[in-house]
Amino acid sequence: MGTRNAIDIQRIKESADYVRYLALECIERAESGHPGLPLGCADLGVLLYRYILKVNPDVPLWPNRDRFILSAGHGSMLLYPLLYLVGYNITLADMANFRQLGSKTAGHPEYERKLGIETTTGPLGQGFANAVGIAIEGKMMAQRFNEAGFNLFDYTVYTLMGDGCNMEGISYEAASLAGHLGLDNLIAIYDSNHISIDGRTDITFTDDVAKRYEALGWHVEFAASSDIETTFRKLLELKDTKGKPRLLIFNTVIGDGLDKKRDTNDIHGSPAEIPEIAFFIQNSSAIRELFEKKYGKGAVTDKQALEEILAKRITNQKTEPLLAFAESDEFMRQMRRETQAIYREWEERLAQYKEAFPEKYNELSRYLRFELSASLHDKLVNYSYQKSNATRFISGEVLNLCAVEIPQIVGGSADLADSTKGLVKGSPYIKRGDFSGRRIAFGIREHAMAAIGNGLALNKSMIPFSSTFFTFFDYMKPAVRLASLMRLNHLFIFSHDSIYVGEDGPTHQPIEHLNSLRLLPNLYTFRPANDIETAFSYLYFLKHMNGPVALITTRQKIDEKIMGIVPAGVSREEFYNMFEKGGYVFYETAGKGEPGIVLCGSGSEVSLARETAALIEARNNIKVRVVSIPCLELLNETECSYREQLFNQFNKPVVFIEAASHRGIHLFCDRHVVMIDIHSFGKSAPGKQVAESFGFTAEAVYERIEKQLA
Amino acid sequence: MGTRNAIDIQRIKESADYVRYLALECIERAESGHPGLPLGCADLGVLLYRYILKVNPDVPLWPNRDRFILSAGHGSMLLYPLLYLVGYNITLADMANFRQLGSKTAGHPEYERKLGIETTTGPLGQGFANAVGIAIEGKMMAQRFNEAGFNLFDYTVYTLMGDGCNMEGISYEAASLAGHLGLDNLIAIYDSNHISIDGRTDITFTDDVAKRYEALGWHVEFAASSDIETTFRKLLELKDTKGKPRLLIFNTVIGDGLDKKRDTNDIHGSPAEIPEIAFFIQNSSAIRELFEKKYGKGAVTDKQALEEILAKRITNQKTEPLLAFAESDEFMRQMRRETQAIYREWEERLAQYKEAFPEKYNELSRYLRFELSASLHDKLVNYSYQKSNATRFISGEVLNLCAVEIPQIVGGSADLADSTKGLVKGSPYIKRGDFSGRRIAFGIREHAMAAIGNGLALNKSMIPFSSTFFTFFDYMKPAVRLASLMRLNHLFIFSHDSIYVGEDGPTHQPIEHLNSLRLLPNLYTFRPANDIETAFSYLYFLKHMNGPVALITTRQKIDEKIMGIVPAGVSREEFYNMFEKGGYVFYETAGKGEPGIVLCGSGSEVSLARETAALIEARNNIKVRVVSIPCLELLNETECSYREQLFNQFNKPVVFIEAASHRGIHLFCDRHVVMIDIHSFGKSAPGKQVAESFGFTAEAVYERIEKQLA
Repeated sequence: MGTRNAIDIQRIKESADYVRYLALECIERAESGHPGLPLGCADLGVLLYRYILKVNPDVPLWPNRDRFILSAGHGSMLLYPLLYLVGYNITLADMANFRQLGSKTAGHPEYERKLGIETTTGPLGQGFANAVGIAIEGKMMAQRFNEAGFNLFDYTVYTLMGDGCNMEGISYEAASLAGHLGLDNLIAIYDSNHISIDGRTDITFTDDVAKRYEALGWHVEFAASSDIETTFRKLLELKDTKGKPRLLIFNTVIGDGLDKKRDTNDIHGSPAEIPEIAFFIQNSSAIRELFEKKYGKGAVTDKQALEEILAKRITNQKTEPLLAFAESDEFMRQMRRETQAIYREWEERLAQYKEAFPEKYNELSRYLRFELSASLHDKLVNYSYQKSNATRFISGEVLNLCAVEIPQIVGGSADLADSTKGLVKGSPYIKRGDFSGRRIAFGIREHAMAAIGNGLALNKSMIPFSSTFFTFFDYMKPAVRLASLMRLNHLFIFSHDSIYVGEDGPTHQPIEHLNSLRLLPNLYTFRPANDIETAFSYLYFLKHMNGPVALITTRQKIDEKIMGIVPAGVSREEFYNMFEKGGYVFYETAGKGEPGIVLCGSGSEVSLARETAALIEARNNIKVRVVSIPCLELLNETECSYREQLFNQFNKPVVFIEAASHRGIHLFCDRHVVMIDIHSFGKSAPGKQVAESFGFTAEAVYERIEKQLA
Repeated sequence: MGTRNAIDIQRIKESADYVRYLALECIERAESGHPGLPLGCADLGVLLYRYILKVNPDVPLWPNRDRFILSAGHGSMLLYPLLYLVGYNITLADMANFRQLGSKTAGHPEYERKLGIETTTGPLGQGFANAVGIAIEGKMMAQRFNEAGFNLFDYTVYTLMGDGCNMEGISYEAASLAGHLGLDNLIAIYDSNHISIDGRTDITFTDDVAKRYEALGWHVEFAASSDIETTFRKLLELKDTKGKPRLLIFNTVIGDGLDKKRDTNDIHGSPAEIPEIAFFIQNSSAIRELFEKKYGKGAVTDKQALEEILAKRITNQKTEPLLAFAESDEFMRQMRRETQAIYREWEERLAQYKEAFPEKYNELSRYLRFELSASLHDKLVNYSYQKSNATRFISGEVLNLCAVEIPQIVGGSADLADSTKGLVKGSPYIKRGDFSGRRIAFGIREHAMAAIGNGLALNKSMIPFSSTFFTFFDYMKPAVRLASLMRLNHLFIFSHDSIYVGEDGPTHQPIEHLNSLRLLPNLYTFRPANDIETAFSYLYFLKHMNGPVALITTRQKIDEKIMGIVPAGVSREEFYNMFEKGGYVFYETAGKGEPGIVLCGSGSEVSLARETAALIEARNNIKVRVVSIPCLELLNETECSYREQLFNQFNKPVVFIEAASHRGIHLFCDRHVVMIDIHSFGKSAPGKQVAESFGFTAEAVYERIEKQLA
């Protein structure tokens, strides 16, 4: 692939125009979308998918495929046509359904490896940092599994970033670490079009970008969309430049192919509108021909007639298919034949590897299809620490107990490993030229840490963890959100969990963070009360592998008396099943009859509840129930009757103790409130349809409350 | 000041050692703190406060004072001794109380301008970005008020940043904007000691920092703590270098003055311990002398005896004062005499300015002491928009209605001004050399935007606003938190507030953000339902000026029927007072008797509640009350009886409708839960004392629930 010298410029341009056509018409149909980037980068996209990327649309999960990360995710209508053209499972009909409810072609690309969508992008800078994570994964896999003559892993990560990605701090952080690590399997392409939403970038962005990346240890080259030949050559050269990550500063024109909107901010994020599309069609020989074939020559030459045709196509979009372009299909799918040859070579290599290195092959299989071993399951279920200690120490011990058995566990901290205990003991840091280690010194770059961890998690071969003080979750939030949205198996370890941090003061004492995390769909937040709950939290993560888990640990020691408590009469396995309900009766004071009050909480406040229970027992002769709630989200999801049993069964007061900020109408409404709210992330579709799909219509609300009206 | 050539190196070194002594002993007493930076930067600190900074400890709020921002806030024990020595209201006793409950000398510096603490720092990179904001304020004030011969504003902002600040993405973002704007009243000093918490920085951080800053348009120089003379000269030169912000890369040795812990990560964030302090004392002629004077020569020469003395000083810390050093006092307070002369000159200049430019003088007074005019109050109270539109448009209109009357209102957006409508109409962007504008093109740098806005708010002369899509609040959160902690008058405008964003999909649809914001103490989140509530939200912000306000607006249009609704029988003024309670009866359907159900919500869901009410009215013959809750926090704070009236009075079902994620035990607990939680930020003191102060002890919890037990 990369070594071929002849490229067919003519065909590239035709296919690029076809990409432009698809972008323009689909965005027009959706009345929403971002044509600017797809139009500016169409030639590059075709070049990459046709001649550069080693991917196999028939085996999209091929672990050694090259990756293409569209960090500037708003340009999704660049990606979908390319995936369609090279044969991924995206059709013209899917594209005609751009941005509609349930469509494969969401407003911004949504992680679906089978479709060739390697990550969810849109929030700027995130995809770039994901790409750094994937590049680290590539280096790690190569060093773990490649043998002389058996290059199983040598993929290259390409990422396309825009001005926005480059202005975001996260891209600086990730680039700084990539440069430090010398990630020469990473090629970033900076779509430099000098335009952002508010106007020309020179109103705010005048970095010398090349110099800046060089300062971070990158190799930088230039090219322009007007010169495909040179761009191709530079991309090949960059691939061969070793020792550093590479940046291609790629000059483009936003909205290329249009008339008045070309090179303006108008075209960044709004449909081009019919007169501009007509101009484009008339001036593109390939697309003009497509239209002429269907509508006749006269209809295309006459601008007004063409505009009417286009208007009709938009109006009748439900029945009117997008125009197909057989020559472009044919041209682009040659890539498929070529990469499939490469893929088959790889498969053969793997088969020989299996013979030559059977143990390594088995280990590789375990990487690619993780299963929790029964022995580790048992160790975690039966874990005890016994002594008094902070849960962050216990977490460190349990993490390492897991890491010993699961070599895929890699990660580190944002310069606080010794405080959070988020480190794999006995392992070196990864560094330039040596990725055998399992520790990553992320530096004081929380945001990049989380997004790089996401990148490591994307292919599901590595199991990454990130750690820092809980208060600095704030710095990472956008990436934690994406981990949740993508359900990545990324473990977030946050220590120093509340006011008990003490002397470092309010900047270092998380107050609102616990409930902020709990608000995130798909993510489960565990705040363990003791040793067993800490081990169970790890077990939950490793057993389910269905999305991120945040583990919240204390700075301060937990009382020995709290350790190792197992509810009476249940086995450890049964106890774990109770734990999976999110809350359980931790303890009841002595005495006959029903509890007269229920105290509940999480983490260190379970200790406090227990102490308070002792006071009540001594002074009021009332039996007290203490309920531990290690995971409020799970308790939220469990059956109603279980919660009734815990809290409401005896119709007695319930006291919730948590050193965290809580808000909500429930705090002051003296009755059970019917909540019409949202439990999952949003969807890509017109706003009204999204609202309907969530039940935010008067009819749906009425239905929800009909019972109350009786 | 800055022009003086002779500096007294000997005295500087003595005072620096005194700063070291104070840092070491106070941190030892607190058993907590960060000695590394104070020891490494003590000479620089003394140099700055003695010879460079134009500040007046007697008039700490002097608007033209130079600013010193300790971005590396963990080094707070550098700042407090310096403030003490030059005569701010910080005493030896205050320092002996370092990191204790209620102390002036908190773990990390906490914003208190009267003490010379210009901002709260600790979360890395924030102080640096604040400094950029203050520098912008300086440029704005200069351009608005300076006249030929009347340089009222020409202050310089100095900020000391560490490796951590430099690794954080926010510092890149802020530096990029500072370079773009050519802020030549800003001097950053990078304490480069090659050590961070996890070890030597070369495990993760190998940027060419000079080149990186140059790429962003900065002028860069080098100096080292070992050469005070050159450092002084470079600082003077930098001050005279025009056209660019300046960075001094300042090589230091962490823990300088110690024995084994010098130049190690051990000394970053833990007490030095007695043997190291004894070593320091024996090797510092100035401090040795202090101890000899008090304890005799022999006691200091004998290391064991000295260690015993130190141990006793720590044990008896409640009664044992810190050692005073009269010569250092005398030396440092000469600065005060010199800067007071400069201050008096400025005062005289101001008096002459008052004569020469009475109108401008009056305007300046209005800047420095903002009061909402009665006329604007009236306009906001009586505001109506009437037509159907999105609240973001209405917000834009109201913002400009305010901006016309309040010239201090400045701000902008992170490249989304036209979407959020967060812009001052008719004003140009500020730019290099011209800061007359009121619009700031922050670029796609949400995090820096928020922190720069904080910097603009610190001196309370400007009233800044920041705006972006609500989903990107995540990128700004750490700075929004600090605005809340400092109660800065910073208006955050977040548009595109929920799933109704539609086609851009889940990455752009905020779900969890609304309740995340509400969890922040001191900040009030308004999600207006219509035109009046939007105007009232602005009125609340401008009337109270007691901390940040977040205004959450819709992308989509709000029904015309919802606009302009005033509860029956109340005047607009009375209505505003109801609004300040956070929630009110928006509407009741027709019919006699009591409502049979209460529907409540915020923002666009008030429209939905009203529609649903119509269905109920039509189908069930039940009277429906619709309650609008524009600010849940205010409703939380208002008197209980008012809330009872709204929700519980008729003992009927309550339905809460909000297109946002909610979590909490209340969601499934079928009774009013007693909440033992936290409503304010944490405090700087030992963890146990902090917990006690928040009532997180068994006794305090018991007291809270005693009534329930009866």
